[in-house]
Amino acid sequence: VPPGETQLVERFFLHLGAVRTDVPLGIGDDAALLRPAAGHLLVQTTDSLVPGAHFLAGDAPRSLGHRALAINLSDLAAMGAAPAWALLSLTLPEADEAWLGEFAVGFGRLAREHGVALVGGNLVRGPLNIAVTLSGQVPEGVALRRNGAAAGDELWVSGSPGEARIGLRLRHPELDAAAGRARLQRAQPDEPQRAALIARWEYPAPRVALGQALRGLARAAIDVSDGLQADLLRLAGASGCGALLEPDEFPVSAALRAAAGSEAWRELLAGGEDYELCLAAAPGQGPRLQAAAAACGTVLTRIGRLVPGAGLALQRDGGVTQVSDPGFDHFAR
Amino acid sequence: VPPGETQLVERFFLHLGAVRTDVPLGIGDDAALLRPAAGHLLVQTTDSLVPGAHFLAGDAPRSLGHRALAINLSDLAAMGAAPAWALLSLTLPEADEAWLGEFAVGFGRLAREHGVALVGGNLVRGPLNIAVTLSGQVPEGVALRRNGAAAGDELWVSGSPGEARIGLRLRHPELDAAAGRARLQRAQPDEPQRAALIARWEYPAPRVALGQALRGLARAAIDVSDGLQADLLRLAGASGCGALLEPDEFPVSAALRAAAGSEAWRELLAGGEDYELCLAAAPGQGPRLQAAAAACGTVLTRIGRLVPGAGLALQRDGGVTQVSDPGFDHFAR
Repeated sequence: VPPGETQLVERFFLHLGAVRTDVPLGIGDDAALLRPAAGHLLVQTTDSLVPGAHFLAGDAPRSLGHRALAINLSDLAAMGAAPAWALLSLTLPEADEAWLGEFAVGFGRLAREHGVALVGGNLVRGPLNIAVTLSGQVPEGVALRRNGAAAGDELWVSGSPGEARIGLRLRHPELDAAAGRARLQRAQPDEPQRAALIARWEYPAPRVALGQALRGLARAAIDVSDGLQADLLRLAGASGCGALLEPDEFPVSAALRAAAGSEAWRELLAGGEDYELCLAAAPGQGPRLQAAAAACGTVLTRIGRLVPGAGLALQRDGGVTQVSDPGFDHFAR
Repeated sequence: VPPGETQLVERFFLHLGAVRTDVPLGIGDDAALLRPAAGHLLVQTTDSLVPGAHFLAGDAPRSLGHRALAINLSDLAAMGAAPAWALLSLTLPEADEAWLGEFAVGFGRLAREHGVALVGGNLVRGPLNIAVTLSGQVPEGVALRRNGAAAGDELWVSGSPGEARIGLRLRHPELDAAAGRARLQRAQPDEPQRAALIARWEYPAPRVALGQALRGLARAAIDVSDGLQADLLRLAGASGCGALLEPDEFPVSAALRAAAGSEAWRELLAGGEDYELCLAAAPGQGPRLQAAAAACGTVLTRIGRLVPGAGLALQRDGGVTQVSDPGFDHFAR
C-alpha cells in the first residue's frame, strides 16, 4: 500500500522549518492558528514554481524546495518585513518519497535560516505545481513600498545581479529562450565559474536581513525577480518618475564578466532570477546604506537616480540614450 | 499582442471581492499589507483544485472560482473564524479571457458574500492549477479545534450531507470512480433533482456564519470535505474517542432519498464534497445548537455521540456494528 496524503505530510512536512512560539496550532487541523505581533502589519505574498515556466522536469528537488520559498522570502524582503509563517500547496504526479525528502531539505533549511515555520499546506496528485504563501510582519508605518520615491533619489541595487540569469542560460538554454529576452554574445566561463553561476540560479539568497535593515533608510524598494530593468521601471513608474542609470557604475562580478565580456552590463540590466533588492533613497544616504548592507553580508551599489518623466535612460560614454524594453511576462511573449 | 500577466491581473483580479478597511495595501506591490484585529488569532489555510483530482477540463470556470474559495472558507468555518483575506495562485495553459472572466465572477461573488478581499496572487502559464490561501481571524481562546471533545459528547452535522457526492457522480462518474469509494446501487433521480444535486457539487455553500455561531457551543469541529465518516473519525481520533452513530437519525434529504433509495444513509456517511460542518457538543446543548443553525439559515442534526475507544460503530435495527473505512486519500488509491 503506498503512503497516503496524511502519511506523506506527517513524514515530510510536519514541523518543517523553524520552531516559533507564535504558532499555537500548526499543521493538522482545518487551519493553523497564529498570533500576530502587536503594533505590526501582516505582510502576505504568494508565488509559485511551474515546470516549463520556472524549471524543467528533472531539476533537483532540493533546489526547487529552496527556490519555492526563496521567491516568496524575496517579496517580503522588498517590503522590509520579517518572515514568519509559510503554507505550501504541492501538486505531484506521484508519491515520490525520494523527491519529497529532497524538496523538504531544500525548503526546510532555508526556512530555518530565516525563522519561518511551515504551518499548513495540501498535497494533491496532478501535474507538478509548487505554490507557496508566506506571511510576515512589519511595524506599522515602516513598510517599504514601490511608490515612495521621488525624482532626485538615488537608485541602489544589492549583490551581483545578472549572474542568476546566466546560470539559468547555462543550465537550461531552452527555458532562457522561452522567456523571450535577447541573448547576448558571450564568452565561455570556465567550469568553476559555470558551476557558481548555475548555483546562483538554483539557490538564490533572498535579502531578508537587508530588507529589514532598509526600514527608514530606503524610500521605495522592489525585488529583482523579472530583471533589474523591468523591476526598476516598476519602482520608478509607481513613484511617478523615470530612471537614469550609469552602466559604468554597475556591480559587474568577475563571473559575470567572464561569462558576458563587454556585454556584462547589459546582462546585469536584463537579468532576472536574481532576487536582489533594488531601492531608492535620498541623496547622502550612501554611507548608511553601505554600512547596513555590510552588516547583512552583502553590498549595495549606486547605479543611477530617479529623474522627472518616465522610462529608462542610460548615461554612458558622455551621452544619454533612452531605452525601451517591456521586460518579462509569462503571457505576453 | 496578447494581454500580459499584469494586464490580466488588473482586468480580472484587482479589487476582486469585498472592500475591507483593514487592507492598507492590496494587489500591486511585492506583497500585501494587512491590519490584524487586536485580541485575535490569525487563522490560515490553503487548498487547491486540480483537474483529474477535483474537476475535469471543460468544467464551468464560474463553478471553479466558487469552489476554489469555498473549500478554504469551509476550513475557516470549521475553526470558528471570520474570513478576511485571500491570495490566489493560478496556473493557466493560456490567457483565456472568457475563462478568467467567468472564474472571477464565481470567486468574486462568494468573496463578497463572506467579506473576503483578494489581496494577492500570481498568474503563470502551465497545466491548470488553482491554489487559494485564505486568512481569517478568531478571538483568542475560542477557536474550534478537532481535539476538544470527550466521550459522551453528542455529534451533530449541518445541512444535508451526501448530496454533493451524488451530484459529482451524476456529473462526472469517472472522477467519482477515481476516488475509490464504493458506488452503491441507486435509483435514478428526475431531472430537477439531478440538476439540484449537481449544483450542490458545483456551488457548495460553506458554513461560515454557523462556524462563528458555534464558538463557545461546540467543543470540537471539522468540515466534511472527504466524507462524513472520514472527517468524523478524524475529529473523534483527535479527541481520543470512538464514534457511535445512529443512521436512523441522519438528515436524509428528499433528493438524496430519490437518488439513493434505502442506501441513502450510506451515501450520507460516505459522501464527500459537502463542506458541511461536523461538531461535538456537550449533551443538553441541542436547543442552543439548533437555534444557532436556524439563525444561520441551516439545520443541525444530532447523528450520534462520542464513546470511549476508537473507530466507528453504527447503532441500527437494535444492534451495534463496528465499521472500518480508510476514507478518501489522493495518494492511497
